[in-house]
Amino acid sequence: MFDTSKLVVIALGGNAIKQPDEEGTFKQQLNNVVLTAHQLVEMNRRGYKLILTHGNGPQAGNLLIQQEEGKALVPPQPLDVLGAMTQGQIGFMFQDQLQNAFRIVGKQIPIATVVTQVLVNKDDPDFDNPSKPVGPFYTKAEADDLRESKGYLLKEVKPGTEKSWRRVVPSPEPIDIIEAFSIKTLVNARVIVITAGGGGVPVIEKDNQQLRGVEAVIDKDKAGQVLAKVVDAHIFLILTDVENAFINFGQPDQKALNEVTVAKMEQHLADGQFLAGSMGPKVEACIRFMKSGGDRAIITSLNKAVAALEGKTGTRIVP
Amino acid sequence: MFDTSKLVVIALGGNAIKQPDEEGTFKQQLNNVVLTAHQLVEMNRRGYKLILTHGNGPQAGNLLIQQEEGKALVPPQPLDVLGAMTQGQIGFMFQDQLQNAFRIVGKQIPIATVVTQVLVNKDDPDFDNPSKPVGPFYTKAEADDLRESKGYLLKEVKPGTEKSWRRVVPSPEPIDIIEAFSIKTLVNARVIVITAGGGGVPVIEKDNQQLRGVEAVIDKDKAGQVLAKVVDAHIFLILTDVENAFINFGQPDQKALNEVTVAKMEQHLADGQFLAGSMGPKVEACIRFMKSGGDRAIITSLNKAVAALEGKTGTRIVP
Repeated sequence: MFDTSKLVVIALGGNAIKQPDEEGTFKQQLNNVVLTAHQLVEMNRRGYKLILTHGNGPQAGNLLIQQEEGKALVPPQPLDVLGAMTQGQIGFMFQDQLQNAFRIVGKQIPIATVVTQVLVNKDDPDFDNPSKPVGPFYTKAEADDLRESKGYLLKEVKPGTEKSWRRVVPSPEPIDIIEAFSIKTLVNARVIVITAGGGGVPVIEKDNQQLRGVEAVIDKDKAGQVLAKVVDAHIFLILTDVENAFINFGQPDQKALNEVTVAKMEQHLADGQFLAGSMGPKVEACIRFMKSGGDRAIITSLNKAVAALEGKTGTRIVP
Repeated sequence: MFDTSKLVVIALGGNAIKQPDEEGTFKQQLNNVVLTAHQLVEMNRRGYKLILTHGNGPQAGNLLIQQEEGKALVPPQPLDVLGAMTQGQIGFMFQDQLQNAFRIVGKQIPIATVVTQVLVNKDDPDFDNPSKPVGPFYTKAEADDLRESKGYLLKEVKPGTEKSWRRVVPSPEPIDIIEAFSIKTLVNARVIVITAGGGGVPVIEKDNQQLRGVEAVIDKDKAGQVLAKVVDAHIFLILTDVENAFINFGQPDQKALNEVTVAKMEQHLADGQFLAGSMGPKVEACIRFMKSGGDRAIITSLNKAVAALEGKTGTRIVP
């Protein structure tokens, strides 16, 4: 029987692939992936079994821009299809470079990317009130045109600038992973699986039981939590750009959180200690994971990940 | 033990996804995928176990055009990364619609797309003499500029027209499938696997054993044959736009081939009966499959696939 006690679902932040100050050339992305891969190999060396998930914001954003620029020649594809494309793109880069990092230490471990659909509720309240900005910025005239021609919902996100408008899409809650059986089968066979990238391709189930992709974005950390539950992982590790979550952030008495009980963390969340759209959903995903029976949820940065798994740093949420 | 005697690797032609006269909107592609899915369900109903692979020419071509149009804003990604993107794109469409087609007949069968790297030889002769055209057509001036700025190899493919030039890339022979273990694991667990799309992302193994993606295109039928061998499939089915392969094609005595021995088919191939870059590589892939121990290799069209599997039509290559 496969022992899941050291099974870790790792949710890689965008900067594991593209740093905010980078343009996003293939070489830049590859360098970041290689750095991440070496940390993952170190975790494996310490006995952790890995499942990876990742963000795709910058990559999906770039595809949206390219589609826009090429629209006179090539029909644009919907956001769900672009999400699937980024799963292929980022998955390939990780499976290739992780394989290479393992080969350097003389190991051959099977690695596979599974293109993943994540079920959301067709009646999710976010479909009525989309809030997640995606893709390029537009002028008011361009925004009006897109609203008219495509039925997009556009919101002014940077008032006072020329291109201040952006398309917003729903960010529904993840419910289940359509490819759960395949993912579990691979995990049990000791394959390192890369899955639910970009939060997974969101699909709804219509009244006639048919699945349909929807133009929406699922929070990748929340999808990671559903993934962790599906594979019965004991540890959920969210990698972001800071070593710890803070309380009273930016104030004189700010304090990095180390080991915190889930009850205490819930209190901090209810107190509004964590920024919505940033640390907030990460903390929320960790709390959900612990309440679904997890052993430990950790928020830290890539370079501190190994130390955090060993209990030496990071924000570690415990029962 | 998993019985592979009715295991079929199906190589779907481009027109399973996008018809030549279509622009390639999402809706058009979805319609084609749905039609294909219903045929696949019928094969499953007759006891065949399916593994799917597919072409990606039109989809990769569209991404190349979009990259070109957006290059002032977004750094283009290399061809190997685009190939991985199309695996996500097409895989998602098939796993979604195949799931739906099964649900209509009351079945739930696990389906998964595995992003696939295919190993090629770094010394493959095609690297010295690239011949596979990809992406948009260029004027001579644009072609000269790309040769200069990117080091692309460009060839004049439509002399006498304004945009007569096209980039050409190598088409090396597939050797092995990097994700073979994961694919076999899923097949043995009765998952319908979609894999090696677009011929797989071509990777070479460098002298230091490190893998590296290369800008090349592997023939999807030849990659399908390697896949069929890896999973020990007994049947290899290539779907294309014609019901049969022909000898003396276009001549008064042209003749559709039905059941043919592999020895006879080799003779026809040696006689130059099949067009290079079209029926030629399909026949070659079938011959390789039979010589590696396959039971049957079939070339036919989507609508005739079920009948061809039952021995009623199509070109069926037998020992």
